[in-house]
Amino acid sequence: MAGDDQRALQYEQTLMYGRYTQELGVYAKEEAARLREEGGRRRSVTERSRSLELLEYDKGRCAKCRICTLRCQKFLISRVGEDWIFLILLGLLMALVSWVVDFAIAICLQAQKWMYGGLESNVFLQYLAWVTYPVVLITFSAGFTQILAPQAVGSGIPEMKTILRGVVLKEYLTFKTFVAKVIGLTCALGSGMPLGKEGPFVHIASLCAALLSKFMSLFGGIYENESRNIEMLAAACAVGVGCCFAAPIGGVLFSIEVTSTFFAVRNYWRGFFAATFSAFIFRVLAVWNKDEETITALFKTRFRLDFPFDLQELPAFAVIGIASGFGGALFVYLNRLIVQFIRKQKTINKFLMKKRLLYPALVTLLVSTLTFPPGFGQFMAGKLTQKESLVTLLDNRTWAKQGIAEGFDYIGNSQAWNHPQVNVFVTLVLFIVMKFWMSALATTIPVPCGAFMPVFVIGAAFGRLVGESMAAWFPDGIHSDGTIYPIVPGGYAVVGAAALSGAVTHTVSTAVIVFELTGQISHILPVMIAVILANAVAQSLQPSLYDSIIRIKKLPYLPELGWGHHEKYNIRVEDIMIRDVTYITLNCCYRDLHDVLLAGHLKTLALLESSESMILLGSIERAQLQALLSLQLGRPRRLEYLRDRATAEKKRLSMVSHPGSEDGSQRVNQEVRFQISTEESTFSPTPTPSMKPLKPALKRPSVVDRPTGIPIPTTLRPPQVSRDSSEGPQDHSSSTLKNLFCVNPETEGLENKNVNINIEGTATPEFRSPPKRVRISVVDDFDVDDDMTIREIAEWEENQLDEQVNFDNCKIDPAPFQLVERTSLHKTHTIFSLLGLDHAYVTSIGRLIGVVSLKELRKAIEGSVAVKGVKVRPPLSSFRDSGTSGTSSSNSENEATELHKLWDRHKSMSLPREHLASDSDEKSQ
Amino acid sequence: MAGDDQRALQYEQTLMYGRYTQELGVYAKEEAARLREEGGRRRSVTERSRSLELLEYDKGRCAKCRICTLRCQKFLISRVGEDWIFLILLGLLMALVSWVVDFAIAICLQAQKWMYGGLESNVFLQYLAWVTYPVVLITFSAGFTQILAPQAVGSGIPEMKTILRGVVLKEYLTFKTFVAKVIGLTCALGSGMPLGKEGPFVHIASLCAALLSKFMSLFGGIYENESRNIEMLAAACAVGVGCCFAAPIGGVLFSIEVTSTFFAVRNYWRGFFAATFSAFIFRVLAVWNKDEETITALFKTRFRLDFPFDLQELPAFAVIGIASGFGGALFVYLNRLIVQFIRKQKTINKFLMKKRLLYPALVTLLVSTLTFPPGFGQFMAGKLTQKESLVTLLDNRTWAKQGIAEGFDYIGNSQAWNHPQVNVFVTLVLFIVMKFWMSALATTIPVPCGAFMPVFVIGAAFGRLVGESMAAWFPDGIHSDGTIYPIVPGGYAVVGAAALSGAVTHTVSTAVIVFELTGQISHILPVMIAVILANAVAQSLQPSLYDSIIRIKKLPYLPELGWGHHEKYNIRVEDIMIRDVTYITLNCCYRDLHDVLLAGHLKTLALLESSESMILLGSIERAQLQALLSLQLGRPRRLEYLRDRATAEKKRLSMVSHPGSEDGSQRVNQEVRFQISTEESTFSPTPTPSMKPLKPALKRPSVVDRPTGIPIPTTLRPPQVSRDSSEGPQDHSSSTLKNLFCVNPETEGLENKNVNINIEGTATPEFRSPPKRVRISVVDDFDVDDDMTIREIAEWEENQLDEQVNFDNCKIDPAPFQLVERTSLHKTHTIFSLLGLDHAYVTSIGRLIGVVSLKELRKAIEGSVAVKGVKVRPPLSSFRDSGTSGTSSSNSENEATELHKLWDRHKSMSLPREHLASDSDEKSQ
Repeated sequence: MAGDDQRALQYEQTLMYGRYTQELGVYAKEEAARLREEGGRRRSVTERSRSLELLEYDKGRCAKCRICTLRCQKFLISRVGEDWIFLILLGLLMALVSWVVDFAIAICLQAQKWMYGGLESNVFLQYLAWVTYPVVLITFSAGFTQILAPQAVGSGIPEMKTILRGVVLKEYLTFKTFVAKVIGLTCALGSGMPLGKEGPFVHIASLCAALLSKFMSLFGGIYENESRNIEMLAAACAVGVGCCFAAPIGGVLFSIEVTSTFFAVRNYWRGFFAATFSAFIFRVLAVWNKDEETITALFKTRFRLDFPFDLQELPAFAVIGIASGFGGALFVYLNRLIVQFIRKQKTINKFLMKKRLLYPALVTLLVSTLTFPPGFGQFMAGKLTQKESLVTLLDNRTWAKQGIAEGFDYIGNSQAWNHPQVNVFVTLVLFIVMKFWMSALATTIPVPCGAFMPVFVIGAAFGRLVGESMAAWFPDGIHSDGTIYPIVPGGYAVVGAAALSGAVTHTVSTAVIVFELTGQISHILPVMIAVILANAVAQSLQPSLYDSIIRIKKLPYLPELGWGHHEKYNIRVEDIMIRDVTYITLNCCYRDLHDVLLAGHLKTLALLESSESMILLGSIERAQLQALLSLQLGRPRRLEYLRDRATAEKKRLSMVSHPGSEDGSQRVNQEVRFQISTEESTFSPTPTPSMKPLKPALKRPSVVDRPTGIPIPTTLRPPQVSRDSSEGPQDHSSSTLKNLFCVNPETEGLENKNVNINIEGTATPEFRSPPKRVRISVVDDFDVDDDMTIREIAEWEENQLDEQVNFDNCKIDPAPFQLVERTSLHKTHTIFSLLGLDHAYVTSIGRLIGVVSLKELRKAIEGSVAVKGVKVRPPLSSFRDSGTSGTSSSNSENEATELHKLWDRHKSMSLPREHLASDSDEKSQ
Repeated sequence: MAGDDQRALQYEQTLMYGRYTQELGVYAKEEAARLREEGGRRRSVTERSRSLELLEYDKGRCAKCRICTLRCQKFLISRVGEDWIFLILLGLLMALVSWVVDFAIAICLQAQKWMYGGLESNVFLQYLAWVTYPVVLITFSAGFTQILAPQAVGSGIPEMKTILRGVVLKEYLTFKTFVAKVIGLTCALGSGMPLGKEGPFVHIASLCAALLSKFMSLFGGIYENESRNIEMLAAACAVGVGCCFAAPIGGVLFSIEVTSTFFAVRNYWRGFFAATFSAFIFRVLAVWNKDEETITALFKTRFRLDFPFDLQELPAFAVIGIASGFGGALFVYLNRLIVQFIRKQKTINKFLMKKRLLYPALVTLLVSTLTFPPGFGQFMAGKLTQKESLVTLLDNRTWAKQGIAEGFDYIGNSQAWNHPQVNVFVTLVLFIVMKFWMSALATTIPVPCGAFMPVFVIGAAFGRLVGESMAAWFPDGIHSDGTIYPIVPGGYAVVGAAALSGAVTHTVSTAVIVFELTGQISHILPVMIAVILANAVAQSLQPSLYDSIIRIKKLPYLPELGWGHHEKYNIRVEDIMIRDVTYITLNCCYRDLHDVLLAGHLKTLALLESSESMILLGSIERAQLQALLSLQLGRPRRLEYLRDRATAEKKRLSMVSHPGSEDGSQRVNQEVRFQISTEESTFSPTPTPSMKPLKPALKRPSVVDRPTGIPIPTTLRPPQVSRDSSEGPQDHSSSTLKNLFCVNPETEGLENKNVNINIEGTATPEFRSPPKRVRISVVDDFDVDDDMTIREIAEWEENQLDEQVNFDNCKIDPAPFQLVERTSLHKTHTIFSLLGLDHAYVTSIGRLIGVVSLKELRKAIEGSVAVKGVKVRPPLSSFRDSGTSGTSSSNSENEATELHKLWDRHKSMSLPREHLASDSDEKSQ
């Protein structure tokens, strides 16, 4: 089964961050199993409630107590549906996870230090221990994630952004991913590599929310609401950041900035509520564990309150901001460069693919070698963990002139910065430079990891560097009045941390996170100024780290339009739309359906009144059409046909004679065959030359082990055409069907569920799932088939295909989103991102003239931004530049649709309608 | 002209908060004047740049220097268009305004104290001074605002919320309003009444932004972009809060929570940038004025950092939160009750209307009498100003046991709380109770004022009360370990302030504001917990203060759907839509247009292909149709007709004889008449019995003074029908026209500019402005008219009305927003609020079947929320309750549109099209 090839392919795809690859066949099967299970569960719930009712009428007064208990239980279960219970549970769960992960990481790091300390006698052994430990941990983490759930790799914020935009990345929210992410993250961070936990925690919180939602849907149906799920995921992102840093406000804001395009203010409270609760529990756990005396900030600072900074220090803060902006852009660029370099280098790539754990191991080896404390590490405070470095960097003493250090000795770790031979400035510079590229490199390792914390620490070090320089420059402070207020380099570190992390993530809310982390807000103005400057610089140079990853992974995402350059996007929908829309008409026959399904790979198809009038009636999902077609050509119908034929034959024969036994045997024969046909076919389709090659299926052991081939006997259904296409036993042995169940590789598995924003939930869960697979073994199938020969079947199918389609039980979206030709790119973008659309039809007076999807829009935006003036694709050729046209009124004239044009076009398109009616009459005969 | 009546009416409408009332006639005239002026300005700009170009080619090398200067100037002017320059200017301006207002208020308050202190010998004189001063100030403020700009009354946040939703409240953003608001606010706050400056500052900042935008549009065209203006207004709201409290982050968040429904994250940075800059300048001004040594928080606290609170104190904080929730709801309720009580009491209302300054004076008298320090005021710290109260309440010493007060003496004002005879607890309780109703009462005074700060102070007092109680209960703190950590009542005050203000405004971001105000974030968890609890309680009891005001003022606003009760809104668009849509068809004649305009009062009208097909082609603004009609029936056309008739006559005569002189005199006659007809008619239409009575026009002196009656001679245009309806000289002397220029009183003046979200800016500024007024004096006009008699004119008009409408130069919105019948209320609400719609057409396969506007939607939401089960209006009768239907699948079946239905409906509606074509052919003959 060419399993190795598949495996290799899959690894190629998942090497960097784990691109979406789960094979559709496997997915379909799992989905079917899930639906079956759910049905069962729901039934059990209903039964339980029924038993309660029975009980009430059944027993006498003595059972009152029991009834009361049951009622309480019922009440509690009904309350479970409330949002706040869900949010509290989510917060509680995440706080526990965060605390446990932190605890485990601390133990891992302690173990490394202990090993390192124990082997002090032999430097080589010491080095071996120092290096082997993280290599083993990282390799385990990479391997474990790779095997269990490749989707757990990376930060998770880009995926969450995509999911919150309305795109379904199904496997990103499964229990497997959750386990892989938590364990992988713990190991990765336990290795002491410069990796962060924020991004993964956003993902973990979302996983938690999704799983909790699934779990709680056992008690009630509210959790099946999709818009509600999106709201809950948004809250979960806030919880993720909140419980990671014990920063509820910053968490909410950061998650909004990082994941949303448009934010519904009515969801605001959910995030705050859950994040606060989570942060509260997270810190309470620390108190309970006697780590802290009471609830305080994670990296508490003790800067003086009365005079935090002088007004004249502000230029220095501004410098930090601007430099951080450049640094942030450089970090994003470097990170992308490394990923792309490794991807492009075919030889490296091949090598790494085969030994896919080699890359993480090599990177870890390099990084840990350089940080080896007795080696180069001594010049860059290598023996400090990330947390220790941050604590020392935020220290409120001045390092440059050790003499006048303030009262209490903070932790003692600050000594690491003070190398006997090397100046503290050199140590800081080395730390910044080395950590910079190390972090950029380390975040490309395919393990669950984030980049926020490393960047935060680098920023703090840079701020400290500037602060120490300032302190050395102005030993007595800048203030001109009587009192001496020495400069506080720790304050600079706070500013630098916020600025650099803000620049990398393109967020302003890092400022708030910094305040919550340090527990002091006295430096608010410097921090805000630096963060805003850093953002201004970084945003004009590079996309944010998360957007960069989205581009690298080619996730279906809509790029933002640039700021204030709306005039530049002088493109209209008619320039970018695809004019050659594949559609079906109300009076089409099954052959047309078949051809259309073969030709295109769109998720939904337009339904027109007729190809003459082109009036858009609605849209139908591909799966619906496939179901229709398989219903028409499926075995049940063939059997029915056979039976009819047999009856007719019998009648004809009964006119002649009465051979009853023959009829009976035939029926038995049919029944047996029918039983065989009810198996669920799980084989993937073979690619035919006419199509794009499908990505080969990945057969994982767990999947292959299932008894797929064994026919499951079901109760015999009356042999009539099943009206419900999703439940009836289906077999798709038809030769015409075998090519239909392939999807566009680009959109494979990426269902956009918000496509139907304008409609009434036409797609039920059953219809959502891709239809059951077609068998490849067509000829095998024919052998065991009924009395028809292959030629007869082909003939029968031909006849069937000529029948007119009956759309009766088909779910139709009666109002797919429509635009007009003259809608501007800017407006299209706004509508797409506001409503989370995947595609929109372009109509002119109700007539379909084109379709524009996310892809076209993305191309248009990126094309017009990146390659200004260059026509990316032919339809874009009608770029209009309003700047060149003389008067300002010409623009508005352009925008107004002149009616006579409308009218002309209209007349040219309106053909007599009678044709249609007569046509359908003909067909129905 | 019944001026008194008009005045009375206007005052009735503006008594409470100044509802929108500017008369349309005045508005139209001002608008026309504005457009004229703008045209002139733009011309001057173009001329300037042209002169620059000329200069370059004109002079030799000696002028290079000048050219360089001019180029620099040009460059600078071009940079002015950048967003950040605008934001910096806005921030700077607002910081200055805020500082100046604060300074003036401080002087006012000092003056009162000085007067009070100077008259210490005589208590009666002292009382008189204490009472008269605020009464005079408030009365002046009320009178001044009333006269200059009644729109300046009140907080301004509700109006900004409405404006940001896309509704245009034009006069709310004028220079007059700015002046009235700033001066009115200064006087109102200078009186020492329990009023706040936050709400008004949001409004002032928006005014600033609007004016600045208008000013800067002199340099470039970017500022005319509407979506940009909305973005800038959103940033301005943040600036308003930011510079009021020197709280940039809290300002941004608060303004988002208070004004937005959906927030575009891409605008986030604007708010942060401007608010930070503004807060920075605001605080720098304080440093420059030697008020502060460096930039610090406004109400700096000095709580201990190492152990801010014990975990066991959290229940007390939770109690504060819950109690604040109830308190906040009570405040909103009380405030509304007072307004409604005064409105309902006819006699009081009449009395107050006549002496409209009496109400403010009475309220002020009452409040200031009660706070008179030697009187009752002594028991409630009456002599402290709002700011002083807050500072003392946030004091980090404990009042209950004065002995162990910490080191420094804070301000000395704390003594006011410590009455020799009365317990501090009694003082606090009295303060809370009295201030509570005083604030609720004071905020109903028609002066520019907010309620945030008074509520904040009351909350702080409540927190302090709980804190002092806790301190009295646990004199040595709660902590069980060795060290004694006494309870900090100041921390409780912080929590209480955040909780109560959060409850009243329904925001969570008051927590952030509190941190920024106090400069300490150590109490983050208690504050967050209390704020969230307060919000949970308050939101389930009452709308927010701003939403309450919106309802009181009947601003066009869409209420929020309740949380998590999506199932309840089981209403579809078909239940609430208006089926009787007034529309015009492509082949209608002017008579139809006339009738439609007379019948309805909608802002936009649907344009259908024909009344048989009902296919929606687009929508046209009312003003466009009015312009079309007046063009058809206007004098130019009549003159043309006359000339044509004359020419025909002449030709006929020339066949007979050649009397040349007669022809000449007629032409001269025409020219003279033409000159007369070019005046702009500014009279308001007379209401006819068939319509709702129009609100009589308010003739302000400044308007009446203009020379409206004097005909302005213009150059003679060639007597042909002007193709450009907006520029050509128009006269509307027709009797059939006089009824058309009335609008629905409910939407009077409220243009919804976001109606056209889906289209390409079909409406240019010229078309936006209401058309010029019709004259009332129809008969007078006929007397000076051309050779036609009244009967002839009527005949001619009848003929004109029978012609088919020529839509050629009409701006048509080709894609008004469409919904389908089965769109749920929830989705409709989301789409309306996302896209800021005013109305949407309901179509079925391209055919118009209804229209739903904000009004219907609001009714449906409020109906289904408030009067559950009660059918508010007949179309709502088809409430469906999915809960009662047995299976869960029935719901999804409901939602799927069965095609056969669609198809049946479709067939029944599709009538032969030939009729249409022949119809139009007939008409064009």
